[in-house]
Formats: sequence, structure tokens, C-alpha cells
Amino acid sequence: MSYQLFSSRSSLVTHCSSLLELTDFPNVVSRRPQATHNFLSERSSMKTFFNPASIAVIGATPREGSLGSQILTNLRYGYTGRLYPVNPNYADIQTLPCYPAVEKIPGPVDLAIVIVPAPAVPEALAACGRKGIRRVIIESAGFAETGPEGRALQNRCLAIARKAGIRLWGPNCMGLVDIPKKFFFTFMHPNIHKDGLIEGRISMVVQSGMLSAGFLADLMSERAVGIAKACSIGNKMDIDECDVLEYLLEDEQTDAVALYLESIVRGRKFLELADRAKKPIVLLKGGKSTAGAKAALSHTSSLAGNARLQDSLLSLAGVTIAQDFQQMMEITRALAMIKQTPPRCRTAILTFSGGAGILSCDLVEQQGLRVADLSASTKKELASVFPDWLPASNPVDMFPAFAARGAAAAYNGAFNAVVRDPRVDVIFLHFFVGFYPNYDRLRLFKEMADREGKVLILWAIGRRDALRAFKQEAQDCGIPVHGELFRAVECLACAARYTPRKNAPKLISTRKPKLTSAAEKILSALPERIWDEYDSKNLLKTCGIPVVQEKILGSVAAAVAAARQMGFPVVLKGLVK
Amino acid sequence: MSYQLFSSRSSLVTHCSSLLELTDFPNVVSRRPQATHNFLSERSSMKTFFNPASIAVIGATPREGSLGSQILTNLRYGYTGRLYPVNPNYADIQTLPCYPAVEKIPGPVDLAIVIVPAPAVPEALAACGRKGIRRVIIESAGFAETGPEGRALQNRCLAIARKAGIRLWGPNCMGLVDIPKKFFFTFMHPNIHKDGLIEGRISMVVQSGMLSAGFLADLMSERAVGIAKACSIGNKMDIDECDVLEYLLEDEQTDAVALYLESIVRGRKFLELADRAKKPIVLLKGGKSTAGAKAALSHTSSLAGNARLQDSLLSLAGVTIAQDFQQMMEITRALAMIKQTPPRCRTAILTFSGGAGILSCDLVEQQGLRVADLSASTKKELASVFPDWLPASNPVDMFPAFAARGAAAAYNGAFNAVVRDPRVDVIFLHFFVGFYPNYDRLRLFKEMADREGKVLILWAIGRRDALRAFKQEAQDCGIPVHGELFRAVECLACAARYTPRKNAPKLISTRKPKLTSAAEKILSALPERIWDEYDSKNLLKTCGIPVVQEKILGSVAAAVAAARQMGFPVVLKGLVK
Repeated sequence: MSYQLFSSRSSLVTHCSSLLELTDFPNVVSRRPQATHNFLSERSSMKTFFNPASIAVIGATPREGSLGSQILTNLRYGYTGRLYPVNPNYADIQTLPCYPAVEKIPGPVDLAIVIVPAPAVPEALAACGRKGIRRVIIESAGFAETGPEGRALQNRCLAIARKAGIRLWGPNCMGLVDIPKKFFFTFMHPNIHKDGLIEGRISMVVQSGMLSAGFLADLMSERAVGIAKACSIGNKMDIDECDVLEYLLEDEQTDAVALYLESIVRGRKFLELADRAKKPIVLLKGGKSTAGAKAALSHTSSLAGNARLQDSLLSLAGVTIAQDFQQMMEITRALAMIKQTPPRCRTAILTFSGGAGILSCDLVEQQGLRVADLSASTKKELASVFPDWLPASNPVDMFPAFAARGAAAAYNGAFNAVVRDPRVDVIFLHFFVGFYPNYDRLRLFKEMADREGKVLILWAIGRRDALRAFKQEAQDCGIPVHGELFRAVECLACAARYTPRKNAPKLISTRKPKLTSAAEKILSALPERIWDEYDSKNLLKTCGIPVVQEKILGSVAAAVAAARQMGFPVVLKGLVK
Repeated sequence: MSYQLFSSRSSLVTHCSSLLELTDFPNVVSRRPQATHNFLSERSSMKTFFNPASIAVIGATPREGSLGSQILTNLRYGYTGRLYPVNPNYADIQTLPCYPAVEKIPGPVDLAIVIVPAPAVPEALAACGRKGIRRVIIESAGFAETGPEGRALQNRCLAIARKAGIRLWGPNCMGLVDIPKKFFFTFMHPNIHKDGLIEGRISMVVQSGMLSAGFLADLMSERAVGIAKACSIGNKMDIDECDVLEYLLEDEQTDAVALYLESIVRGRKFLELADRAKKPIVLLKGGKSTAGAKAALSHTSSLAGNARLQDSLLSLAGVTIAQDFQQMMEITRALAMIKQTPPRCRTAILTFSGGAGILSCDLVEQQGLRVADLSASTKKELASVFPDWLPASNPVDMFPAFAARGAAAAYNGAFNAVVRDPRVDVIFLHFFVGFYPNYDRLRLFKEMADREGKVLILWAIGRRDALRAFKQEAQDCGIPVHGELFRAVECLACAARYTPRKNAPKLISTRKPKLTSAAEKILSALPERIWDEYDSKNLLKTCGIPVVQEKILGSVAAAVAAARQMGFPVVLKGLVK
């Protein structure tokens, strides 16, 4: 039996709903304890992680270059609440009084960040419990990702936390970052602060060290992509992607959420969140290939699941599927800025290069969008700005007008003509930056486009420093700006697909999943591992999904007897114990 | 009748050879005069364009910001030969003596660059002829791209040049640039020099203002992609992509050639060049879509042709097809640096981020490459460097070793282990730049990889300035470096396809195309325009390609009679004159 992809929304929902109620794709097998989610409402629980009035750093050290030192340095960069280093070996660290144990801290502590070696974490958690700390981020590694012993250690931590009423974030993670607030609850390298931060209105959730300084620095300093919050959730033994996503979907600083995940542990919950989300969600899922899935198992102890089934379902719920890190962030930013796309996305292309205009047409059509057919009055208006010989048509090659009348006249003339054309939905503007003062009117362009209900998107190339300033300016104006034509058109196409999907009827009902008693019985009898075909089929059968008859038999005689009973033809498969 | 794509190499060649001999795809209809290619051998003809001992700039002006001023500024930046501004209105420009006409220049002139308005170009060419100048680059616009009048002007120029024995480059182009020599025979904005140049060993041919300063600046300053030569060929009324490609394929400074083209005017010649080329050729073809093809017609007066047929044929000849500008350049650089790919491309991934390692596996498999299965001895060696709990497998996550033993030990240990593994063909190294001194051994890594016959490719992200320095260092070491995972793997996949294609038997024979007399008759009778279906079918018929019977008839009675003669069923189509 193999999975089929369903071509229509309704048939997919019909066929998958029973599966969904059951599976929490991809790893029903881990059957994570649901109890952790009961004792505190998720929203209020998450809020304190992001806005603690006081933080204890358990495992802080003065040793430069150590993770326990970097956390403290990062916290001191922008966090203005009360800060308590905890380490029995020091009286003070970085001029702050240091405490031998959390219990010795005077006054309440909202959040503890733990960076002691893995074996010492259970005791640190117990101490947090005694102190009344109810939020802990464990950034130390050495848990489930390292094998059975680490998993046992992780389970011990979870038991301690549950008993003490502690919500746990991590372990094996980089914590969280809030760029507008300058909060760095993380051990990432403090060099991250050196190039300055770029605030934005998109947040990300990553199940990886990808939130390490490298990726954030690349986004902010190299690509001028602004960030709101970045959350690294690691092994997610308690707090998972759904908890953080739910928080971010309500967060006022966040207009869209990007997620890099190696597993989705509560499939139905995730799907429900996506389904009712009023903000764009972009997902990059690692471990879709055989080799990738194997690596994900050892990286964050994640089971990757069936990628095509997940992608299809999540797409229907309005999730945009990404395939690379920076692409994910550019798509997310574009979706955050392009609030609504018109149904037809008839695109006008304003370029400085005939070649770039032509290629843009190719890419626009290739991505299923349309090249706008300008109205007669627009063409007439363009003709008045442009040299006589230049055909006033889309793509609008501004170079000849530019050479004849200067950059401002060319840009303004072309933009003014096109933005009011009722046959145009999207204006795709090209800029070559660092040669002429050609971008002083970006904010005005954006305002005009908004007023006319048109989407504005930019492709900008040019001289390095000027380009970065230009990209920041564009972002500040709320205009998506991209460094490659293909990427710009790809992001536009994602936006074009997003609006109708969000306007479509919701994918799933809100009723709670219910397992049949037969399914419950099978689930409770099976060990916690990846199931084989036989067990999986038995479970599917309980949901009414047709499967072939199968029997496991121990002898030739029994096999012959069973075959006679089933009726021929039969297939015989060898099993290794 | 519609074109079919052929699935096997031999059937494609068999079926297309007659077409090929005929068509010079895509625009046989323009039937460009072949005579221009006879009077000088192409190689020696091209050489002087790239290495003139003296240059006259016809249309030089002292007016800052004018094209005639910028050409002179650019020439003075690095060109050390004799330089003659020509303009009757000035005695000197930029401290150089200025001549009222080329005939007044003392001594010989190898090359003239013309930037006077289009209507004045014929006289400028005639003057060049009188002076004995045999190479002219016309950078002025206002020719075939503007319509019938401009086309007539262009033809007049061509006639003058042919009579005088002049080879023409352009018009409507940006000329040429040689980065290692610092030659800028172009009116592009002189700001291009401000960020410094990055030399490389890849050259490009563009049929567009894409060679404008914007794209070159983006490549060199923003992306740290080094360039050898950049050639903008515009309307290519004489010198075309084949002339320049042929020169670059022999050029010692060029290891690979990228082309952005809106048409290929001598299809068979281009295919032959590609087929026997010993260097990688990467082609980005503009005008593949309906809207793009229409725009190409007005941009450089190009007929776009059948994209799928072209792509298929050219791929078989070893040409790599690109889809965007920067992607084209990154692919070209990767192909230039990866001289030979092993048949299996079993890839080892060395990463600082588990997530990036997993995604790399996904992308490697998705692109049809293989994730290497490390040998037992390599795993053992890795285990000795890495913490006990970390499974020593591919992808190799270096972060834990890094945290425990420092960057140098992690990188060196992992690289040493993997590079000698006989089960590994490619090493895909990840770097987060700007935090630790982690790249001082790049050159050594490259030497080791070369010694072991392994391919090395890099993904690097991080802090802006450090990243740029790192990318330049990698490029200087001959290692392809990319800023996005997908792009790196995509380039690797292009390299993996390139080697076997170049090793396959040649695609086409070297015999000259021969037209049947019937085809000659049709060709000479037809006007120079896009042919309709009727004329096209008649021509195809002369090559033995089966087409349906057709007749154009002027009355109902004649139509009925013809239908009776043909036999039913028939289809009637209306024609508009």
C-alpha cells in the first residue's frame, strides 16, 4: 500500500481526516505526554518566556568564549530587567553579584536559563522548582539527540519540571532573541551585535543551531532582512513549535512567521493553528529525503514523516512551503508586506535593462502570473515621457527615458503612468543602485501603490554599500526587496497563492481527535519505535482504511493453511526478527 | 503541426539534423548576410577588439555625466594604449588632445568606439573606412530596436562597413570590459571602479544593458564573483554571440563562458561551437515566454525561437541552461572551478549546524546526487575527534567538536578524515563567517581535495564584511562558494551533469549545411519577416518533413473544387491579408 496525493481539497480532507485525528504526524510513535500542556494556559505560559522581569543564568562563568559567559554578555547587551548569574565558584561575574544557587537569589525570578553540563541539569531544575521559578530555558546539549541515555536524562528532567509546574524550553537549543527589544536570551557569539541589528516584523522558529549567530548575522548584516523574534526550540521536550507559533500568531510585533522544523510533533494542533492563522506562515521542513530524515533523527531526535502528505495538507491550510533558509525568510518578509494580492496579479515591469525586463516576463509567466497588458491611456502617458522611438509597452524599459531626461523623470513618469492603470495589479520595479540618486521616492511610490490598491515589489542590484542602504530603506517603507529576479517573482507568486487560500473555507473542524478503542489498544501495546508495515496496517484498519489481509506465521505449514483460508493468490514475505 | 521533444540523443539528432542544416534557429527569416564573415578570419578579427594598440572615441565630450565623457573616463582608468578623443567642438578633453575627425589622427588607429547619435553613425563609419580603421564598436542606440527606420539605418551602416572592410560590434550595446587588464571600452557609469574590481576566470557575453555597471558592480562588489571579460553585443548586426564565444573559448584568461542572449542568430554555428568546446558554456535565454519574446523583439530586435527545442539541443551539446542572472554566474564559476566531476558525486557534508546538514541532504538527493555513506575507518577517525555521544556519520555536524575542541581541531579533524575516504567524491563544507578564525586553511583544504581527486564546494553565511573577504579568499583558492544552500547544490548538480555530457560523443557532424534547390527558391522568394504557417510548411516540405496538404484560395468555388480534389475531410481557415 502506498500513499496517494489527493487532487481536490474536499477529497483530501475527507480521506485524511481520520488519519489526522490519529496521527499527530509525523511521530505518533513517540506519544509525548500530553499532561505538560494542561496545567498552564499556553498563552500566558509563553508570555513570560518573552517578557521576564528577572532572569537567572545557571552556569554563568567569567571565562571568555565559554557559553556561560556569552549568555551573560548577550543579556547585558539589551536586557534591562534584573539579572542573576548563578555559579557556586564566583562571587561576581561581569561586575554582577553571582549566587551559589538559585535559592539564594533575593526576590522572585521569572525565567532561568540553564547552561550547565547535561548531567547537572536535573538538579538545576529541582532547584528552580524549590525557588518557585516556572519558566526554564535549557540551552545545554547532551540529551535525546545523543541516544538512549540522553533520552532517559531528558525524561528525568521533564518529570522534575512537571512535578514542579515548570514549563521547559529546549534542551539543545539557542534560546530566543527579540531584536526590537534587544533581548538575547542565548549563548550565541556576541559578535552578532557588532554590525548593528535590523528590526523587522517577521519572526522565526527554528529547531536547530541555525539560529546561531551565523544565520542571524547573514540575514541582518549581509541581506538586510529585518527580524522581530527568533526562537530556537531544540529538542522541544515540552515547549514545541505549536506553543511558540501560537504565541507569535498573536504577537503584535510579528506580521508573519517562518519555521525551520525537523518534525511536527502535534500535527493536528499545528494544522489547526495554520488553518485559523491570520498571519502568513512559511515552513521549511528538514529531513524530507532518506538521508536527511536519518540525520534529523540524530540531530534533534526527530522523525521526519511523510513530506508530500504534510506539504499538501499544510499548503491547503495556507502554509507556504519553502526549500531553503534565506528563501524562507525572503518569502516570509514578502508575505508579511504584501497584505493582499489581487486575484489576477497582472504585473507591470519597470526596468532599467531591457534584458532584465524580458527575463522578468519569462519568470512571471513561468510562475503562473500574468504580464499586464497596459491600457491605451497608460501607453499614451508613457509615450509622453519616453523617446518617440521606444514602444510604450510592458515591460517598460526606462533606460532610454533615463538617458534622455534623467533618473527622476524616468522613474516618476513611468511609475505615475502605471500605478493608476486599472489593468495593472502589481508593479515590479527594478533598481540599479549606487550610480544615480534613483531611490529618493520609494516611500512616495509605496504610498501611491497602497492608495491605488497595487502591490509593489523590488529587484535591486548594484554597489554593495549603497545596495544595503537601499534595501533597508525599502524594507522600512514596507516594500519587499530582492537581490535576484527569480526570487522576487517566486515571492510574488507565493503571495498570489496565499490570499485565495486564506479566503477559502477552513480546512478542518475544531472537534477533538477521538481514537477508537481498537486503535487505543494497538497504540498502548506497541513499543515506542518506528512501526513496521504490519503494525501500521493494523492501526490504519481501525480507522476504516482498507488494507490487504496479512498474517505473521511461524512455519511453512501454518503459512499454507493461512493461504488456503485467505484464498489465492497470496504473496509470501520473509521477516527477520 | 507542433514540435515534439525527442527523448533519446540519437533520435533527436536524426530528426533534427535536417532542420538544423536549414534553420540557424531561431531566425532564419532575417537571413543575415553571410559575406561579413568571409573577408577576415574570425579569430584574428576578434583579437584586435580585445587588444587594440590605439583607440579613437568618436563622440567624446567633456560634459560630465554624458556617455561620451564616461567612455573616456573608463578608458583612462586602465587602458594604456594611445587614446584619441574625436569631436569637432573641442581642442582637448580630459587633458587629451581632441581631433575634429578620425582622419586627422596621426598614426594608425586599431579600434574606434562610436557614441554619436544614431543618424550620425553612417558618416562616422565612412570616416573610419577612410582612415583605415577596421574595428568599430557602435555603442549608440537608435537602430533596429526602434523599428523599420532604425533597421534601415542599421543596414546602411552594415553596407558601409562591409565595403570598407570594417568589422562592427553593436550597435545598441555597452561594449566590452576586461577586468584583469582593467580595460573598460564602455560608457557604463565610472562609479563601477569605486569598489575595486574582482578578477576571475569566467567571461560573459550579454545581449543587453545588463552589462551596465549595475550588474557588474553587483557581481564584483556585492557577490564577490570575479570576472575575466564582459562583452555586450547589443543588436549584433555583424559581430554576434558566435564570434565572441569562439574567441572566448580560446581565451587563456577564460575558463568558462556565460551568455545572456535574446536570440541565437547562427544556430548551427553556435551548436557546433558548444559541441566541440573544451570549456563550460552556460546560457540564459531571454524571451522564452510569450510576453518575454514580444519584449525581446523590441529590445534587441531578436526573435526568440522555440525555447524547449533550443534548450534540449544545447543541453545535449553540453551547454548548461540557466534561469536567472546571478544564478548563471554562480553556475559558470562553479563549472569553471570544478574541472571534472566523478561519476557518482557521493557527497560528504561538513557543517556547523545540524539543520543545515539535514537540509543539505534533502537538497543533494532532490538534485539527483548522492549523500556519501562514509567508510568504517572514516567514521572511526571522526569518532576520535568528536564527542563520544555524537554519531560519526554523514552529514558531519562539527558543532559539538567545535564547542569541545575549537574550530581548527573540528574542521581539520573532520576534513582530514573525510577527504581520504574512497567512498566520498565531493566535500560540501559549510562556514559561518565572522565569529571565529575558521578559514585559515582553505588553501590547504583545496590542495588536499585536489590531491585526492575530490571536489570541494562551499556554503558560507555570516557577517557581511568578513563574509566578503572569505568569499574572495575561497574564489582565489579556486573553490566555488555560495551564499545559499540550494544554489550550492544546484551548481554541484550542474557540474555533475557537465562532465558526462562533454565525454559523450559529439552531437553533430562538421559537414556544411546544404539547402535543396526547392528550399533556396522558397527562401529567396520570401520577404524578410516572421513567416506564416503556410510558408513555413512549404519550406519544411522541401526537407522531407511531412506536413498536411494546404492551398490558399480566393473564392468559395475554388475552395470547393480544391476540397474535392484533396478528398474529405478538410478544414477551412480564414486568412486576413
